[in-house]
Amino acid sequence: MKRVAIFPGSFDPFTKGHENVIEKSRHLFDEIIIAIGVNSRKQAFFTLDSRLAHLNSLYTQEDQIRIVHYSELTTKLAKREGAQFLLRGLRDVKDFEYERSIAQMNHSLHPEIETVFIITKQEVNHINSSIVREIHKNGGVIDSFVTNQDLLVPSI
Amino acid sequence: MKRVAIFPGSFDPFTKGHENVIEKSRHLFDEIIIAIGVNSRKQAFFTLDSRLAHLNSLYTQEDQIRIVHYSELTTKLAKREGAQFLLRGLRDVKDFEYERSIAQMNHSLHPEIETVFIITKQEVNHINSSIVREIHKNGGVIDSFVTNQDLLVPSI
Amino acid sequence: MKRVAIFPGSFDPFTKGHENVIEKSRHLFDEIIIAIGVNSRKQAFFTLDSRLAHLNSLYTQEDQIRIVHYSELTTKLAKREGAQFLLRGLRDVKDFEYERSIAQMNHSLHPEIETVFIITKQEVNHINSSIVREIHKNGGVIDSFVTNQDLLVPSI
Amino acid sequence: MKRVAIFPGSFDPFTKGHENVIEKSRHLFDEIIIAIGVNSRKQAFFTLDSRLAHLNSLYTQEDQIRIVHYSELTTKLAKREGAQFLLRGLRDVKDFEYERSIAQMNHSLHPEIETVFIITKQEVNHINSSIVREIHKNGGVIDSFVTNQDLLVPSI
Amino acid sequence: MKRVAIFPGSFDPFTKGHENVIEKSRHLFDEIIIAIGVNSRKQAFFTLDSRLAHLNSLYTQEDQIRIVHYSELTTKLAKREGAQFLLRGLRDVKDFEYERSIAQMNHSLHPEIETVFIITKQEVNHINSSIVREIHKNGGVIDSFVTNQDLLVPSI
Amino acid sequence: MKRVAIFPGSFDPFTKGHENVIEKSRHLFDEIIIAIGVNSRKQAFFTLDSRLAHLNSLYTQEDQIRIVHYSELTTKLAKREGAQFLLRGLRDVKDFEYERSIAQMNHSLHPEIETVFIITKQEVNHINSSIVREIHKNGGVIDSFVTNQDLLVPSI
Repeated sequence: MKRVAIFPGSFDPFTKGHENVIEKSRHLFDEIIIAIGVNSRKQAFFTLDSRLAHLNSLYTQEDQIRIVHYSELTTKLAKREGAQFLLRGLRDVKDFEYERSIAQMNHSLHPEIETVFIITKQEVNHINSSIVREIHKNGGVIDSFVTNQDLLVPSI
Repeated sequence: MKRVAIFPGSFDPFTKGHENVIEKSRHLFDEIIIAIGVNSRKQAFFTLDSRLAHLNSLYTQEDQIRIVHYSELTTKLAKREGAQFLLRGLRDVKDFEYERSIAQMNHSLHPEIETVFIITKQEVNHINSSIVREIHKNGGVIDSFVTNQDLLVPSI
Repeated sequence: MKRVAIFPGSFDPFTKGHENVIEKSRHLFDEIIIAIGVNSRKQAFFTLDSRLAHLNSLYTQEDQIRIVHYSELTTKLAKREGAQFLLRGLRDVKDFEYERSIAQMNHSLHPEIETVFIITKQEVNHINSSIVREIHKNGGVIDSFVTNQDLLVPSI
Repeated sequence: MKRVAIFPGSFDPFTKGHENVIEKSRHLFDEIIIAIGVNSRKQAFFTLDSRLAHLNSLYTQEDQIRIVHYSELTTKLAKREGAQFLLRGLRDVKDFEYERSIAQMNHSLHPEIETVFIITKQEVNHINSSIVREIHKNGGVIDSFVTNQDLLVPSI
Repeated sequence: MKRVAIFPGSFDPFTKGHENVIEKSRHLFDEIIIAIGVNSRKQAFFTLDSRLAHLNSLYTQEDQIRIVHYSELTTKLAKREGAQFLLRGLRDVKDFEYERSIAQMNHSLHPEIETVFIITKQEVNHINSSIVREIHKNGGVIDSFVTNQDLLVPSI
Repeated sequence: MKRVAIFPGSFDPFTKGHENVIEKSRHLFDEIIIAIGVNSRKQAFFTLDSRLAHLNSLYTQEDQIRIVHYSELTTKLAKREGAQFLLRGLRDVKDFEYERSIAQMNHSLHPEIETVFIITKQEVNHINSSIVREIHKNGGVIDSFVTNQDLLVPSI
């Protein structure tokens, strides 16, 4: 059976930490679908179009990786795509507790979908999308944290 | 390529929490090797023989699961067995921080072996082997926490 | 002396986790006042009327439990109601640290009111009101997490 | 019905933090039994006799408080004493996670016994018995942390 | 070489916890610049003018301490002011993890600027500016937590 | 006034994480005394002589750094050496909570001695002396974690 995973997130932006999650789980799955969640009630900092273009630039040559966006529950997306796994990165304790609640609540709803966790390597473990946004807003340079960062366009 | 994972631990004893890690990662790996680590400097509470018998009783019919014991570095065992993955369960924050250090240090030594984490379901998330041992030592009943607990024999 | 406790919260919504806090502290107090805090600056997801109706449906027959709403400091409500205790549930580390700050700051202001904490049982320990709201917003089913959930009405 | 609580611990030594737990829960219970747990496999730093004398000196005049020692499971002691509650103090995250596991495991075994938690006030929140022992071993003065500390006698 | 530190924050308001950070680091630095960060996208609860007046009232006589406000990246301010150090207080685990990410990301950008951390003393360790604001909004008295609190004026 | 700090620890062994603490605090202090704590009741894994030789090899040319060993309370050492500061590294949440208790208890005893904390950079943040010892015991290579590791000699 083909093992398919959804890697969901707002990816606002997709950092070198997220890249490391993909790199570390490549051998684990036959296909990984990177799925940008769109929340109609909360505007992202970078436009959806630029986040898609940015992700496509990183994985343009790779058959194993597909990029989508969605605005439903993640477990519904997983079912629609035939994915049996959700893939999530863990960075720190705050992440861990939130992800545990989500994973256990998803498990109550859909026990057939399993969440698999990857801990990012130490060199990128500190990278946090919200701090990256703060640095960008205040005119700082973010290329230590984001590859191809020039493709990202702020919403306004 | 066959995906093989080592699930290492002292399993003193192997609880319903550990069973849940296996259950949740069955579809992820083609083979899972449950590996009891033996530490020559520190005696376990339950004998190695009884822990092996206990584990064999739980997975006796399953081709996908193999049970071994070892006393070397876990990454060495992984290489010897041709495993590309280490499998670990996460329960709470204390677990998480310790596992993160181990995983990142293992990654520095052997970047080709990835550690994959599973968060146990809420019904067994609270089970802790050291508290199970305390209950057993004090004459309490542990069958809410351990399947086939009568197979386990204290070292003395 | 009659022991009276306030159980304050936004209860947006009141989950099976909150139900467990009540169940576990029933023998501890002679009266428990479940108090929905109303914040004039921040709209709740479910209407106040429906949250009150929902709570009344759960505890309709019980003399020991009373349901109120309030928009002042919780310690003022406690004094007005003659309650000597505040009752709070603890779920995870994030909860714990926030509750510790609140309890210690309340204690500086009103040392005669004590806060008592209950840790929810494992089966409901993962339930988080904000994730329940997300699931509901996205059309998911929340009856694993909330009893009588059909009584709850979103604010818009 | 009379509300009776066991306050169990090794109390090696009983600090001003523990005193604060008693002070904060006096109005909650009709009787509090402070119970020194004796572990035959692990010697305490201060002798059992001196820990009992120390506790008796602190609560000598109080009908509401009784002091015992025990070497069985805490829930068995509770049943024997007719106590419906276990009382525990919470200080920091490490405490919290350990106490949560214990409380949830005890709840699986004896759902009729509830654990109630108190968070110590900020002035004593940092006091840690094992650090108190280290200070005492190295000739430091511990009277900022322990009342009547001169009654305590090291085991050797 | 003169050791100069920036102590950055929104200080909305500057509490007795922040005062303790200054008190504890006075002997460490030759000059400390308390720097109120102004975020054009997010209004503070207390006006900038009143926060500046409040801070000036606390440190009016002190040559060692200077008060500024800024709206750029903190590391840019540090360079402009010739400061080699950022000074931050740590209170709890949530603080710690956020500060670690910020400090490590700042270090990637400007390795010549070091962040130095102080843990506040236990008597003020629980004071949290956002809970202080909640108490003030609801008509509570905040002078246990903030010196000269009458100088602070809400934005509306 | 000359600013002198004690950097205390068991340093069993002194890792690249500890080196980073020194590197990051060099500009903060005029003198740093690295102090190996010797506990007569608990044998270290590496001999004291080899730990001293190891540390001397790392800082042989540096006037700013001195290496000592001691077996008293750290605050007594500080007074004897005329140091006004204790220097400690912070790595993770577990570290943080323990260090907070120690720092606050030391502050109760000796308010004139301040503890200053440094968070190690991300590349070495995961290095943990006890895991380094485990790797060494099991025949693993530790030179990713410890400089000049060949100078260290196990106690037996």
